[in-house]
Amino acid sequence: MAARPPHVVIVGAGFGGLYAARALGRAPVRVTIVDRRNHHLFLPLLYQVATAGLNPGDIATPVRRVLRRQSNTRVLLGEVRKIDAAARAVELAGGARLSYDALIVASGSVPSYFGHDDWSLHAPPLLGLEDAVEIRRRILLAYEKAEWEPEPAVRSALLTFVVVGGGPTGVELAGAVAEMSRHAMSRDFRNIRPEEARVVLVEGGPRLLSAFPADPSARAAASLRRLGVEVRTGAHVSAMDEAGVTVGSDRIPARTVMWAAGVAASPLASSLGVPLLKGRVLVQPDLTVPGHPEIHVVGDLAAVKQGEGLVPWLAPAAIQQGRHAALNIVRSLSGLPRLAFRYRDRGALATIGRSSAVADFGRIKLSGWIAWIGWLVVHIFFLIGFRNRFLVLFQWAWAYITYERGARLLTARDATLMQSEPLPAAGAEKQA
Amino acid sequence: MAARPPHVVIVGAGFGGLYAARALGRAPVRVTIVDRRNHHLFLPLLYQVATAGLNPGDIATPVRRVLRRQSNTRVLLGEVRKIDAAARAVELAGGARLSYDALIVASGSVPSYFGHDDWSLHAPPLLGLEDAVEIRRRILLAYEKAEWEPEPAVRSALLTFVVVGGGPTGVELAGAVAEMSRHAMSRDFRNIRPEEARVVLVEGGPRLLSAFPADPSARAAASLRRLGVEVRTGAHVSAMDEAGVTVGSDRIPARTVMWAAGVAASPLASSLGVPLLKGRVLVQPDLTVPGHPEIHVVGDLAAVKQGEGLVPWLAPAAIQQGRHAALNIVRSLSGLPRLAFRYRDRGALATIGRSSAVADFGRIKLSGWIAWIGWLVVHIFFLIGFRNRFLVLFQWAWAYITYERGARLLTARDATLMQSEPLPAAGAEKQA
Repeated sequence: MAARPPHVVIVGAGFGGLYAARALGRAPVRVTIVDRRNHHLFLPLLYQVATAGLNPGDIATPVRRVLRRQSNTRVLLGEVRKIDAAARAVELAGGARLSYDALIVASGSVPSYFGHDDWSLHAPPLLGLEDAVEIRRRILLAYEKAEWEPEPAVRSALLTFVVVGGGPTGVELAGAVAEMSRHAMSRDFRNIRPEEARVVLVEGGPRLLSAFPADPSARAAASLRRLGVEVRTGAHVSAMDEAGVTVGSDRIPARTVMWAAGVAASPLASSLGVPLLKGRVLVQPDLTVPGHPEIHVVGDLAAVKQGEGLVPWLAPAAIQQGRHAALNIVRSLSGLPRLAFRYRDRGALATIGRSSAVADFGRIKLSGWIAWIGWLVVHIFFLIGFRNRFLVLFQWAWAYITYERGARLLTARDATLMQSEPLPAAGAEKQA
Repeated sequence: MAARPPHVVIVGAGFGGLYAARALGRAPVRVTIVDRRNHHLFLPLLYQVATAGLNPGDIATPVRRVLRRQSNTRVLLGEVRKIDAAARAVELAGGARLSYDALIVASGSVPSYFGHDDWSLHAPPLLGLEDAVEIRRRILLAYEKAEWEPEPAVRSALLTFVVVGGGPTGVELAGAVAEMSRHAMSRDFRNIRPEEARVVLVEGGPRLLSAFPADPSARAAASLRRLGVEVRTGAHVSAMDEAGVTVGSDRIPARTVMWAAGVAASPLASSLGVPLLKGRVLVQPDLTVPGHPEIHVVGDLAAVKQGEGLVPWLAPAAIQQGRHAALNIVRSLSGLPRLAFRYRDRGALATIGRSSAVADFGRIKLSGWIAWIGWLVVHIFFLIGFRNRFLVLFQWAWAYITYERGARLLTARDATLMQSEPLPAAGAEKQA
């Protein structure tokens, strides 16, 4: 039997892992990519699933289909529980082990509640499709409950939506919730006025979008305020329960709270037994782990120093790192030295509802309509697959023209959660 | 205060209930429509969600949106638990009560396992979006498990799909599963050949599609056999467990079983305290309940005699009945007598995969490509909303050209269900 090619195991099929697998498609290696989900998720549009603008399927592509033509690659649905660096093997849930010659760990981030894990009950995070569907469920159900709630104070708490965290996810989520209540929902109810919904965005730092320069950041805040969002910067959540949030000493009665504030590296990081920085794996300049040149860490799991700071945890950085790790593996096989990673900053974009966005492309800073078009083009370009691109474009065009949200789904389980109160009289809203 | 217009309560927003509500849009009544879900579901395409061809959102429309312009109508998310005919009120989960002057009960059907309720664990029904997503999950997971299953007998059971029930739902489901395994999945795996999947369709009666005449019924069976489906008519399921089904005395090892055999009226029927026929409410010719001219029962819940037989439980019949009940309510208000319902049979259609269908329009019977085009046109026409129509049409065109299935989603929960076995060696499939 001929010597078999070296085995590269990739943990995670997000931006880092998937682009690493693609970069290894023609390399003289065997590749196994493992993910807990069968799909690659286009995370930058996840907030649109959470606000009923897109279907879950529109931003997900089966990993098998993306890698179908790579005959050296196999795809495994499974959960990696542990990395056994000494034995060069990963352990899956269920006990199976996969040996590797080189490993790329791209398992991404998990939500961090800064030590308040009980808050996760009240404020779900937005990291996977399940989360997005759960947030969508809570938002839609809040309107349904408010419609039948006789008590004004409770009704107002039902129509208050708090987003914690003023990064791109928080900004986009708050903008979308505000827009949804002003437009898509506004004509559908009889007893409430959805356009009076209160949307509060809470950010601990001094300004929104801290990864951006000061100017687009201020413009984003102004756009949100025009949409009716209450922007509170320098404000910290000190308590949270099912009836509301406490921000500093101010109590906000709110039944729907969303968490876009903190993420931490996935627990796999600690199983590596190497130094961490802010819960992430502090990697060498070539993205490998100290003492284990065969283990590469990329994407949200990695803390990569560059100049004075750290490479930001954004999709383009994960893609570049995944490709770089693949390149270094191929170079090592050919006896060439590994290269240091250098992040090429292509700029940053965030959208704030209809026809409004901010963009920072280094010297060029855009905002308003032109930034919004730029945002559309970039997101469609990076979305994988013609079908998804077309479906998303059509739904955006449709939403733009009609102000509708197409994916407003609640299921049977939800009706029993309604806790029906005494109902207002039918037609009461028609009375003088 | 002026006398308020009479209050019509509609239970269920399926075909019967929704079309009744629409027919009452300009009538001098107040309307309340109650459903456990916030959406109207286009049931005839549900099997395409179950086989990953369409997204759940594509065949669902929010009830509020459909009825938005009817200012006399309010929509309530809630579950009706009981009908108190004596007090003229319905009781919701949670205890709230709604009084009515006229009632239309259109709460549809629930699965019936002919006394074997434990079978529901092994063979989910296909009646709501949750069911469709569950069946999709099981089908996709079966392929994923089979890919990593070393034991040939288990692998073959994982790749065996049994559909119980040879009505339109069963026929369409079996055809779609067979087609999916032959095309969409066939290139995505390394260790299994999805096109060798075994699909068995079990029907208790002497032939498939018993509502159709003998000729299209025979053509449907022939089309299914060409797709590789094993059609077993006159065959009864006698036992079922997690490892397979027993059909007569024949044991079929199968890990995925789907139930399209029996439905019964929803439990509300019995709370009416009126005569039932096959678990359905036996209504008067005018669709009201004996002794209660203010209670109308329509759709799958109703047993309506016509000539020698019963009106079939199909979408067009439910639509006609819903409209008829609305008409009778308006007539009663004007002091006119209620009219007897007469079902106008507009024909029946069923599709069997790509470019193949059977149609029975009375004297005109079609099959093959032209029936398939007819099927497409009719289904797009009755689907509610331009957005859904466009999305479904595009995805059908896309699937037709590429043989793909776009909505192949598994979530994180699923990976831990994988029960990972010892894995085959990476690249083993490349060895001589």
